[in-house]
Order: sequence, then structure tokens, then C-alpha cells
Amino acid sequence: MTSSNSYSIGLLGYGTVGSAFATLLAERIDHVEHVTGYRPEVVGTLTRSRGDFEDILTRSQLVVELIGGLEPAREYVLRAMAAGRHVVTANKQLLATHGEELWAAAREHGVQLRFEAAVAGVVPVIRVIQESLAAAHVERLHGIVNGTTNYILTEMARGGLSYDEALAQAQELGYAEADPTEDVNGKDAAAKMAILARLAFSTPVSLDQVTYEGIEGITPDDMAYARELGLELKLIGTAERIDGGLSVRVHPAFLYPGHPLAAVSGPFNAVTVESPTITEITMSGPGAGGPQTASAVLGDVISAMIPPASTPATEEELPMVTDVVSGFYMRLEVADRPGVLARVADKLGRHGISVKSVVQRGLGDNARLVMVTHPVLESQFYDAMGEIAGLDFVREQPRAIRVIQEEFV
Amino acid sequence: MTSSNSYSIGLLGYGTVGSAFATLLAERIDHVEHVTGYRPEVVGTLTRSRGDFEDILTRSQLVVELIGGLEPAREYVLRAMAAGRHVVTANKQLLATHGEELWAAAREHGVQLRFEAAVAGVVPVIRVIQESLAAAHVERLHGIVNGTTNYILTEMARGGLSYDEALAQAQELGYAEADPTEDVNGKDAAAKMAILARLAFSTPVSLDQVTYEGIEGITPDDMAYARELGLELKLIGTAERIDGGLSVRVHPAFLYPGHPLAAVSGPFNAVTVESPTITEITMSGPGAGGPQTASAVLGDVISAMIPPASTPATEEELPMVTDVVSGFYMRLEVADRPGVLARVADKLGRHGISVKSVVQRGLGDNARLVMVTHPVLESQFYDAMGEIAGLDFVREQPRAIRVIQEEFV
Repeated sequence: MTSSNSYSIGLLGYGTVGSAFATLLAERIDHVEHVTGYRPEVVGTLTRSRGDFEDILTRSQLVVELIGGLEPAREYVLRAMAAGRHVVTANKQLLATHGEELWAAAREHGVQLRFEAAVAGVVPVIRVIQESLAAAHVERLHGIVNGTTNYILTEMARGGLSYDEALAQAQELGYAEADPTEDVNGKDAAAKMAILARLAFSTPVSLDQVTYEGIEGITPDDMAYARELGLELKLIGTAERIDGGLSVRVHPAFLYPGHPLAAVSGPFNAVTVESPTITEITMSGPGAGGPQTASAVLGDVISAMIPPASTPATEEELPMVTDVVSGFYMRLEVADRPGVLARVADKLGRHGISVKSVVQRGLGDNARLVMVTHPVLESQFYDAMGEIAGLDFVREQPRAIRVIQEEFV
Repeated sequence: MTSSNSYSIGLLGYGTVGSAFATLLAERIDHVEHVTGYRPEVVGTLTRSRGDFEDILTRSQLVVELIGGLEPAREYVLRAMAAGRHVVTANKQLLATHGEELWAAAREHGVQLRFEAAVAGVVPVIRVIQESLAAAHVERLHGIVNGTTNYILTEMARGGLSYDEALAQAQELGYAEADPTEDVNGKDAAAKMAILARLAFSTPVSLDQVTYEGIEGITPDDMAYARELGLELKLIGTAERIDGGLSVRVHPAFLYPGHPLAAVSGPFNAVTVESPTITEITMSGPGAGGPQTASAVLGDVISAMIPPASTPATEEELPMVTDVVSGFYMRLEVADRPGVLARVADKLGRHGISVKSVVQRGLGDNARLVMVTHPVLESQFYDAMGEIAGLDFVREQPRAIRVIQEEFV
């Protein structure tokens, strides 16, 4: 039996994303209850071999569609909305092909149809375009919306791999499917650009109106010339107003290094939205993967369960920590005489601080010593620096600036 | 008289952001009516010299607070919410200092208090943390949340300016106030980090709990060493869980080049959110400026007027454009003999295509010619390439890849 504050969810599909969603929901269930006031419960799961759609529909307040493909996903989503259920889906093909029919049904039945996970995984581009930028006149979108091809192009550029080698590596690491056709030929990105363009420009756009080219023909030579010319090669989706009309397309393109998408590497996705009022905003993050897509689905489920929380709740009162770990850059002005570096290094070593890099340079009678340390507790570093400042050969108060470690690349 | 579908807005404050908001609302009013079903109307404006708060409050359904500072902004916001009005504000000091009191009042009176514009201008970090990431367990935030200091540091790094020179330039260009104290000493960023930490970690955080250091002491030497060590210097706000507690702080820090904030330059803001489920997402865009902040305020006003639109409306049916302008990279395998480059250049010139860069390289009897063109209509480029492919010295089908121009730097 469901308790009085439970919220019943029907789950259609239990593949990579479906099972990741069930796992994430179980992990975060107390948090979701805290945020929404309701405790979500998966009251039924439909797979190829088990579950009954009608039964699940009857028992659910909200339906999560993670089957993928056009049919029976379309039929299930339409029937769920006709029965007054909110729907959350990650199905880009469905929206890019039958979006108008589905949105009309959602309006007709007064239910929510949410689909953040359909485009750019956990990057909240749908919500930002529909809500934050509801007032903006969007002129153009550029997107890297397929993680598989961005991974392949990154490896070709960085590692000098051929297209076939990079694809094989992407498959090995789970960044590409066994059949990567729709990723590498641009069709997957085209479906996502159709959805983004439809939202950003408030005009119907379907997949068959999007022209696309893939990356199958890109060679290591193209990459080498790109480097020589100072360019980055990406599979870019573009949707833009041109002379009162709209162009939506996907093709490989070179970017100049200043472009906000030029630095987006590996399996990441990113979208840049340009509008005269806002100039541009860029959002980036992991484009796919079960847990990431599941996180976007759960964000939609929470939004469908409650109106947006404009008044933050207090979940726990965390104590404030003031002494934290950091790498440090330290600059010392010292007398230029033997043994100086050794004595500084000795002080650092006694405080358990290890040095990552050193630059020393003579300046007449003086020398300047610049060091970057490995991470250390701030108090520990400043104790050591205080002692170093008192050494007889140190000419000025040392300077310290924190260094933030490279953790995600 | 207001018509039946009008939505009345009281505007408190008419400085840079207030007047930009009034202008933007007037520009976008038809669009807002289309999106929300209501026509917004500013029914009263309060400035230092004119307007009466009580009168404006009585006539408004929603109050926009753009006065800034603590009082009387706090009093007005509390009284508006007590009277059942939704409130939209851009006031970071107010929220970082009296947030708990204001959020409690919003809950008590069942009204919305929205404040996207208080942090990172048009970058929708508040909405994304509160809604898209409502389900995520956030481990850490890093932010560049002060555009003035990021502009100064960028100019010091790129242009070799001293701190004083870069500050003077920022003031001249309107990126720094006449009194820049709270920007350069880190306090402005600290207030924003208090708000972000409060939302991301669901725990009360106020400005007086945030430690901060500014950029006043940064020297061109620090910048030179940073370059030598391969690092970027930024004013970084950090909020992170440490051993069951929370640390929130602002200080200059070096970033390794792979860090998602390392490439954020000029007056831009950016925030990276890290969580085990999502890995990380990064959002960036212009941090301040009247029109940008006004755009964030208007996005909040629309959200307060209606529940989020999950079913996109059709505003206009834009025709699809298929022939668009682009730069092109073209690679030609040609016989290595005199006059080849001239004949290719001539064909391009006859089609009105101008060349931006050329790389030519001999390969035995053959040569490879790589060109990047200035922007040209695609059909025009492909016509030219078709003719070039038919020249007797061209050995293989030429290859073309589009080049996206550097428009925002």
C-alpha cells in the first residue's frame, strides 16, 4: 500500500537509463521527499518481458518513458497524458519526430511533458531555454550535442588517432554503441538540434527539416592542418535566424580558439545561446551516460511533482569549516647565495609540504624563488611560510596564492 | 485602467538595472504576453524622488526590487510578501545577509521570492541549482562571480597591465564602479557565494561566514610566473563539503589549464557544480551590465507569473533556410607545378570568395593546398569547388569543412 504522502511513478523501460534512474531514485529518496514533501515510489516497471502498461498507468501519478524509439513509446506517452498523467521522457527521436502532436496533447490534457534528458544529458539546456530565456529573443544556438563524436574528434586531435582507431577506443570505453551509425553520421545530433531550435525559436521544427553531415570522412590530416591553422574541429549543431527564416544544421566545423565551444573536449556536451540582450551564455557538462541521464530525469520528476521551490528549505545545518586543503604558489625574494633553496625546501619538508615545481631567477645580489606546492592544509602552509619569512636571507614578506588542482579533465 | 488580462508590476528602483528592465519589458511585451497569457504593466515606479511604496504595493500583483542595499529594500520586500505579492529581486547583499528571514516570510505567505539576477547576471545558476539539480548531492561549487575582477585579471594577464592600470581601464569601460572596493576586495563575490552555497547545500549560510581575500595585491610578476608555470590566475569562490562540514571562501587562485573555469575571460562569470552523479556542469556568460541583469529579472518575472511552460507554444512559423554563410577550409591534392595556386585563387575570386589563410606543401610530384576562406554563401562555395575539382591539375575530389567565425571573444 502507498502511504498518504507517497507519489506513484510508473517506469517504462529498464535499460541503461531506466535501471540507473531506479538506483538514483532509491539513493536520493529521502532528499526528494524533503524537497517535494512527497515520497516517490515506483509502482510498476514495464520491460520487454514483464509488466502491463494499462496496469502501470492506472496506478501511477507520473509516467517516466525510457523505452526509446518511436513506437510504442509514442502511443504510451499519448495514452498517459490522455489519462491526465504527467510524463517525463529522455526520448529525443520521439520529440524530434512527433513533438508537435505530443505538446498539443500535453496542452489539451493540462499535464506536464518534461524532456531535459533528451538533449545534452545533465546539461540543463531545455530548462534554461524554456524558463530562464523565456524573455530573450534568441538569434543563434551552437551546440556540441553528441558525446560520442566529440570524444572521437578529441582523441583524433590529441592522440593523432585515425577515425577508425578513435571509434574503436570510444566503443571500448562505452562512449560509443556497438552500432554507432546515428552518432557518427550526425542524425542523433540533428534530432537534438530540432528540439532545441523548436524551443528557442517558438516555431515548429522536425528532424526531417534538419540537414546533417557526420564525421566519418574526417582524417588525421584534417586535424594536423587544423592545429597548424590554430583551429579546433568539432561536430557542431547550429540553429539560427537568417533573413526572417531559420536554418538548423549539423556538420563538422572548425572553431577559432576564442569560441566558447572550442575547449569542450572528450564526451562532454555544450550549448551556447546568443541573444542581443544577454550576449551569450554557455552550458557544458557530461553529455550522456546512465547516471547523468538519470539525474536529468530525476530533476524533471521533481519539477513535475511540485512547483519550483523558490524558497530554499534547510535540510541540515552544516558546520562551517575554515581550514582547508590547497596547493600554494609561493614567491620569495631572497639573497642570492648558496644553500638558500635547500633551507627553504627543508622548512617546507618539516611541515610535510612537498614541492611540485620551482622557478629560480637571479636579480643582481638577490634571487627570486617561485614554488608551487602539492595540496596542504592552509594552516600548515602558513605556519611554514611564517618560519620561512623569518629566515635571515629572506628580503621581503613572502607572497602566497592558492592553486586549484586539475581534477576533471 | 488595466485590461482583464493585464498583470500589474510595481518597480522599486530606477537606476541602471531598473531603467534597463523597464526598457526590456517594453521591447518584449508582446512576447511575454504570448508566453504567459498576461500582458505585464508597470503600474508604479519608486525612486528616491517620486512614487509612494504603499500606493505601488496596493496596485501590484508582483513587486520587482532593484533598489539594492539592505534598507529600505528589506522592509519593502517583507511588506510586499506579507501582502501576498510575489517578489523578484537582484539584491545580493540583502539575500546574503537576511536570506533566512526573507525565505521564511515567502514560505509563510505562500509567495514566490525569485533572485536569479543576484548572482552571475544572466547565467542561470540559481534556477539550475534549485531546479535541475534539486536531486543532486552537490559536493563542490567553484565560481568566477565577479566580472570586474575577472576583467582586471584578464587584462593583467593578456596585456601585461599593472593592477592600477587594469582597474583604471575597467572603470573607463564601465566594468568597474567609481568606488570598486567591494568588487576588488572579494566582498561582492563572497555575498554571491553565500547565496549559492545556501542553495546548493540546503544549509543556512550568511555573508559573515564567508572568508574572502581580494586581488588588490596581485602584481604583473605573479602573472608572469603563472604563464611560466602554465596557470591562469582568477578570483575564485569555492563552496565545498569537507568532513561533514562546509567551507565557503573567496580568494585569488591559480587554475591549471584543463579546469573548466580557466578559459573564462574578461567580464564574464561562470560557475562549475560538481556532484558524483553528474560529474560536473559549468555555466558561463556575461556577469553584469544593465541589460543582462534586466534579462535575468524578466526571466524571473515570467516564471513568477506562470508555472513553467512544459509545452512549447508556437509563436510564428519561421521558414527554413538551407543556404547559409560560412567560412570554409578546403584541401586540394594537386600536381606540383607552377601556376596552380594562381588558378585556384582565380576560380575562388571569380565566385567572390576571398582567402584568409593558405598552407601549401610539396609531396613528391604532388602538392597539397589547404585554404581557409572568409565567410561565403555555401552554394557559392560549392559551385567554386565544383569548378576547381574539374581543373586538370587536381588529383582528388577536394575536401571542404566549415569554419565557424570567432564572433564573441
